[in-house]
Amino acid sequence: MTAVRTCEPAAASQENDRVPSIDAGRHPFYRFCRESLDGIREQGRYRRFTPLARQADRYPVYDHVTVPAAEPPVGREVVVWSANDYLGMGVEPAVAEAAIAAIREHGAGAGGTRNIAGTSPLHAALEAELADLHGKEAGLLFVSGYVSNQASLQTILTSMPGWICFSDRQNHASMIAGIKGARGATCVIYEHNDLADLEAKLAAAPKDAPKLVAFESVYSMDGDVSDIGATCALARKYGAITYLDEVHAVGLYGSQGGGVAERDGVADQVDIIEGTLAKGFGVHGGYVTGSAELIDYLRCAASGFIFTTALPPSVVAAALASVRMVRREGWRREKMFERVATFRAKLSAAGIPFMPTPSHIVPIPVGDADRCNEISRRLLADFGLYATPINYPTVPRGTERLRLTPGPHHTDEMMDEMVSALGVLLRINARHEDAAA
Amino acid sequence: MTAVRTCEPAAASQENDRVPSIDAGRHPFYRFCRESLDGIREQGRYRRFTPLARQADRYPVYDHVTVPAAEPPVGREVVVWSANDYLGMGVEPAVAEAAIAAIREHGAGAGGTRNIAGTSPLHAALEAELADLHGKEAGLLFVSGYVSNQASLQTILTSMPGWICFSDRQNHASMIAGIKGARGATCVIYEHNDLADLEAKLAAAPKDAPKLVAFESVYSMDGDVSDIGATCALARKYGAITYLDEVHAVGLYGSQGGGVAERDGVADQVDIIEGTLAKGFGVHGGYVTGSAELIDYLRCAASGFIFTTALPPSVVAAALASVRMVRREGWRREKMFERVATFRAKLSAAGIPFMPTPSHIVPIPVGDADRCNEISRRLLADFGLYATPINYPTVPRGTERLRLTPGPHHTDEMMDEMVSALGVLLRINARHEDAAA
Ligand SMILES: Cc1ncc(COP(=O)(O)O)c(C=O)c1O
Ligand SMILES: Cc1ncc(COP(=O)(O)O)c(C=O)c1O
Repeated sequence: MTAVRTCEPAAASQENDRVPSIDAGRHPFYRFCRESLDGIREQGRYRRFTPLARQADRYPVYDHVTVPAAEPPVGREVVVWSANDYLGMGVEPAVAEAAIAAIREHGAGAGGTRNIAGTSPLHAALEAELADLHGKEAGLLFVSGYVSNQASLQTILTSMPGWICFSDRQNHASMIAGIKGARGATCVIYEHNDLADLEAKLAAAPKDAPKLVAFESVYSMDGDVSDIGATCALARKYGAITYLDEVHAVGLYGSQGGGVAERDGVADQVDIIEGTLAKGFGVHGGYVTGSAELIDYLRCAASGFIFTTALPPSVVAAALASVRMVRREGWRREKMFERVATFRAKLSAAGIPFMPTPSHIVPIPVGDADRCNEISRRLLADFGLYATPINYPTVPRGTERLRLTPGPHHTDEMMDEMVSALGVLLRINARHEDAAA
Repeated sequence: MTAVRTCEPAAASQENDRVPSIDAGRHPFYRFCRESLDGIREQGRYRRFTPLARQADRYPVYDHVTVPAAEPPVGREVVVWSANDYLGMGVEPAVAEAAIAAIREHGAGAGGTRNIAGTSPLHAALEAELADLHGKEAGLLFVSGYVSNQASLQTILTSMPGWICFSDRQNHASMIAGIKGARGATCVIYEHNDLADLEAKLAAAPKDAPKLVAFESVYSMDGDVSDIGATCALARKYGAITYLDEVHAVGLYGSQGGGVAERDGVADQVDIIEGTLAKGFGVHGGYVTGSAELIDYLRCAASGFIFTTALPPSVVAAALASVRMVRREGWRREKMFERVATFRAKLSAAGIPFMPTPSHIVPIPVGDADRCNEISRRLLADFGLYATPINYPTVPRGTERLRLTPGPHHTDEMMDEMVSALGVLLRINARHEDAAA
């Protein structure tokens, strides 16, 4: 049989609806799936993955595969503006060579869980490196940043009875998964980056309940940044521990890339710093760092850490090379911020609106899912430029946007192309709206 | 600062207890962690990870790192008997070369989530290949088998109101995480592989509630195998869909390595087949396969799929090469079963007890955590052989064991060494027990 490619999903369900017998003898879940997908499509939220093959030696140029059935697949060059390998560390030759050397020496996979022959000296070395990066006693690797958040928060919040978790309203899905997964714990949501609200809620909570404040440094969709020092001071005042997601900051902020907490000189005030190896460090995997006993407890108690195959040695070796290089060499961070500033200046000069942010992220507001999808589609089709449309539920309805992440590899010419394409599409699209109004 | 290596954890907490001031001003969670770790140590459950570097060209020979501080680290050769890269696909040169080629072409990481520039044509090709392997319409990749179980089950069981999940008592932690994570769903545990009990429980449940039966094919600790056809027939009779974890079977059973469901000719009767790329296929990552609409629904709804960086192209390329090779070439499966039979014959001849299983797994019963740890330690220290001790909570107390996984790479000589070492240690240890009794 031929398998359906998930990036080009199966025939539309409208057809199916004319054939009610399709559900004869079938579980109602199948109908539920079709109907949900119809609803998602109607809301313009149906996600089609654009098949993009990164070209390591020409980053941020990718090959957009237009005829996947051809052998080899046929594609064309596009410049990608939405990748989260912010510094291009994943295409750094030394990082690639570290991965290749580890594959040659140790093979393609780890071959076991951390406890069952899956802990190589590389894993231990990377955990020590990450702990050192954040000024913590110990570190622990997970298969992803998502799992590091989910498993760590869920494990902590089910450890003692009565935990209350104070969670920023805009926390990432992975933190929410861990907090919601912690049965028995109470979750109190405070308004985004609103320390007065956090304080009011901390003050209102039972004094002797164990408390944890969970927040991020750089919020990746709006590109705003939290006040880590002030949040930790409040937490201390009310006897709460702090859990900080630096996923969109590690590698990018601080003199060694230790994140916003390093930049602000407050890393020692945070109990647990979580990060990913898949964005600023350009590879894959996630981690937490903290005190020796806390990390050792997670190592012994977190189901999502214990019962899964360890990260491949090659991923760990590449991440280790990347972290060491990023710590040593600040020029990529500086170059990224220079590129971001240059791009913003070009956008301003062309009169293209963007959300001003204190971070490296450049959101271009669009405000409507269909329009957002359409602009993204035309950027790709007409201009060979790729920017992911960001729609509900990732952002609230009415705030749909393109999210651009200029980095050291985006040249002035690439920027001029993007600025002029946006000029054309935003104006065209505005005209269409006028016509419709 | 020097970071603590998590495989050699920080100073014992007994010392800390003499210094009560360590907790002055600290959150009670720190004390909780120390006390929990003390309890775990007292029960003999504290896990020390043995640092083992796989030698790709000499699998199952690993380098056991004994002096990690040395530069380069000092180690010695050991033969590993507990890896889950059952066929050695992770050290297959063609698999390694596929990974290396993808790193050179695409870099070390995916650089984005599946929706944000992280879907390469390789991802789509592997999903199609896995769907085809299991005779399903579509497949979906996750960062691990753990996440594929957790995210899929949780998403399905929270989709419609009133789900009842019938879960085999010995299901893996990752399935349990997904089932428990599904708030609002009811979980009914049936006795392990006990179809009479399953039927009684299905029959007792409200007729029109949506139902799902979750089970495994090969249970990896006891090595027993479920009756997939009969389980699916029961599920159909009571209108339940079926979710099958073939993690310890894919690559190994069936004429193409499609798992026990393929071997038994019943894959078409299972709604969702889940597997890993990290065991029989020797690489990393997990997946589910099923009908097009069901997989498309998971693709659009599963938080653990959506909000995380895609698997690196090199991992996907290696897995694709491995799956294709495993499907085409049956000799590794045959060789593995021949090696398992030979090893069992040698154990029998030497009078060493082992649990007879209908699978490829050879558990050696020990029955006590301390003794199990001690035998494992001495195997490593005195004989250069590595077998992980499997203790509570992975298996019930009193059933502690060594779990051996002979594969195509274990030679007769390696087997003779293991058999004679086990002979010495089990007898020595038995004598110690006699002396103590
Ligand atoms: C804030 C935040 N935390 C965690 C994650 C998950 O990290 P990873 O991609 O390594 O799973 C992401 C995005 O993927 C994120 O945006
Ligand atoms: C039955 C079972 N399912 C799922 C998993 C998780 O797979 P992975 O190692 O790919 O996370 C494992 C073991 O790790 C397992 O034993």
